[in-house]
Amino acid sequence: MDGLNMSRRIRRTPYTDRVEQAGVRGFSVVNHMLLPKAFEPTVEEDYWHLKEHVQIWDISVQRQVQIKGPDAAALVQWMTPRDISKASKGDCFYIPIIDANGGMINDPVMLKLEEDKFWLSIADSDVLLYAMGLALGRGMDVDISEPDVNTLAIQGPKAEDLLASVFGSHIRDINFFKYNWIELNGTKQLVARSGYSRQDGFEIYLQGSHLAPDLWDTIWEAGLPFNISAGCPNLIERIEGGLFSYGNEMTRENNPFEIGHGKFCVIDGSIDYIGREALQKIAAEGIKREIRGIIFDGEPCPTCAKPWPVLVDDLQVGQITSGIWSPRLKKNIGQSMIERDFWQIGQKIKVLLPDGKIQDGNVVSLPFS
Amino acid sequence: MDGLNMSRRIRRTPYTDRVEQAGVRGFSVVNHMLLPKAFEPTVEEDYWHLKEHVQIWDISVQRQVQIKGPDAAALVQWMTPRDISKASKGDCFYIPIIDANGGMINDPVMLKLEEDKFWLSIADSDVLLYAMGLALGRGMDVDISEPDVNTLAIQGPKAEDLLASVFGSHIRDINFFKYNWIELNGTKQLVARSGYSRQDGFEIYLQGSHLAPDLWDTIWEAGLPFNISAGCPNLIERIEGGLFSYGNEMTRENNPFEIGHGKFCVIDGSIDYIGREALQKIAAEGIKREIRGIIFDGEPCPTCAKPWPVLVDDLQVGQITSGIWSPRLKKNIGQSMIERDFWQIGQKIKVLLPDGKIQDGNVVSLPFS
Repeated sequence: MDGLNMSRRIRRTPYTDRVEQAGVRGFSVVNHMLLPKAFEPTVEEDYWHLKEHVQIWDISVQRQVQIKGPDAAALVQWMTPRDISKASKGDCFYIPIIDANGGMINDPVMLKLEEDKFWLSIADSDVLLYAMGLALGRGMDVDISEPDVNTLAIQGPKAEDLLASVFGSHIRDINFFKYNWIELNGTKQLVARSGYSRQDGFEIYLQGSHLAPDLWDTIWEAGLPFNISAGCPNLIERIEGGLFSYGNEMTRENNPFEIGHGKFCVIDGSIDYIGREALQKIAAEGIKREIRGIIFDGEPCPTCAKPWPVLVDDLQVGQITSGIWSPRLKKNIGQSMIERDFWQIGQKIKVLLPDGKIQDGNVVSLPFS
Repeated sequence: MDGLNMSRRIRRTPYTDRVEQAGVRGFSVVNHMLLPKAFEPTVEEDYWHLKEHVQIWDISVQRQVQIKGPDAAALVQWMTPRDISKASKGDCFYIPIIDANGGMINDPVMLKLEEDKFWLSIADSDVLLYAMGLALGRGMDVDISEPDVNTLAIQGPKAEDLLASVFGSHIRDINFFKYNWIELNGTKQLVARSGYSRQDGFEIYLQGSHLAPDLWDTIWEAGLPFNISAGCPNLIERIEGGLFSYGNEMTRENNPFEIGHGKFCVIDGSIDYIGREALQKIAAEGIKREIRGIIFDGEPCPTCAKPWPVLVDDLQVGQITSGIWSPRLKKNIGQSMIERDFWQIGQKIKVLLPDGKIQDGNVVSLPFS
């Protein structure tokens, strides 16, 4: 099979030319946009590089949904069970967005820019249309739009040193899941200490597409002494690190408790939001399944295009939605919802692989240690 | 570049195994699902086959948004400028869905199944989330869900004969953009005379994933005497036929008038819908650009990954969003919005191609004749 069919419908980013020059080996599609999927000859080489050095990632697919106006805070609060009144300017807030049944619609990071202005940095579903529907339906006084923001992630243990060399040492003062501002060509740009890896790093929410190639080049050149490479979210590192992917580990069939995000859900009745009654009921009854790690035997497994059944005796008790060979653990690893009766750490299970082979394994906690 | 990264997030369809067995050469992504992109060695061979014989297409990406309940008709009407009270059971209704500014959100085909039950067969955006937002916001009494429907298209001049041989001659009585019902393994299934080609054909809205492989196999075997092949929407045929693609020819930056769909928009005030005032204003002022065909010189052009500027002297007057070599016309062809002052048929233009070459061309009407 050859490459993805390219068209305007699947939007290029202002970094795509650079990404192609850097030797991207293919793309995935998130939010109707291109996400690089691999650069180095193997995902494993990308993995070791990410854990030792620093990488530059085009993650423009994390589109921003801007909600602004007198009712902005009310609308965002209505969309999430997390109490957003606890967020200050400078905070990055992970907020589950749920439907009336408590099912996950998205899990963006919320940036509070002003009291009446928010960005939601979204996973793969059209949150803009959902927010627009809610606002039109309720007649709320908000403006909902997509600002011209294309985010560049700098990830890896050398990310801080690299960005400090470019933007100054105040970069070092940004704590995890906080943001601050930098100067770039006379503009003010938002930088957060965050990212879709466990290797430390930053996300630059670049506003102004025309600045993108220059930002890429500046960081690339400054990164050469740090052994920078072009990269992308790494499947091995993500799975090992217990980071979840909307559409893979969770869908509208799952509630926030099932992915271990009950801590973000206020169910005491102090705030009102869509799905509150559903979450209260789920919390009272207890969840029926929860996300776990699975370690299993055998040759290095393929990547997980279709979920792999997880079995106890002949009963299916879960399905691995993201799985891969861990070069560090020298075992296959996966993430799976597991039914309540079988979710205890140490539970023996079997994994049914696409080639028909069955491998022994057991349930572990996340992240993989 | 190698293939698209496969994961559960980009959903396989119940036909994907068959599509792979049939030798698919790659996929695109629409509505978070896999759409086959080519089978024959070239898109041109696919094109000639489609125009002469019959093809079977997995178009499950046309997800159904089911809207059901006492307020179902009111919600669907609120989403579109077309008067849906004119639709009867058995009609397929093309309905633009627009935002408050008149911008296109999607352009589904609406099937009225009951007075209080509709399916929207959608293009590439999450209409389900939009509809859910509207209903939650307004407190409407509807149930919005995705039924287990995976549509199979049978397209080409031999489609009617093939389906009549499988399901009986009443297939022949289904008129264009009408639907009726067939029996399949004791189930009742919806068949419409419609599809994303100009070669005649049908779409089978198969309800029940478990029936999918058998339906594929049944049609495949019955199709052998008709020289059936596996296919997919064909870029040459689509562009020649003046069929538009949401995300390519139109986005939220475009209103229905610009794509020639003013005839579907009721602006006399007799119905109420989101964006009505915007459309009335646009209709009063006149549109600033409209979709046209472009024929241009040169060697066969590549496919259009980035829009190609359309120029008159040094002024950009449009951009080609879908372009390709027409083996029938032996010319390059494209679809482009064109500014009002330059949209007359016969207008001389130039096209700036990605290799930097400039080709002469002119404005023509759609479809290409």
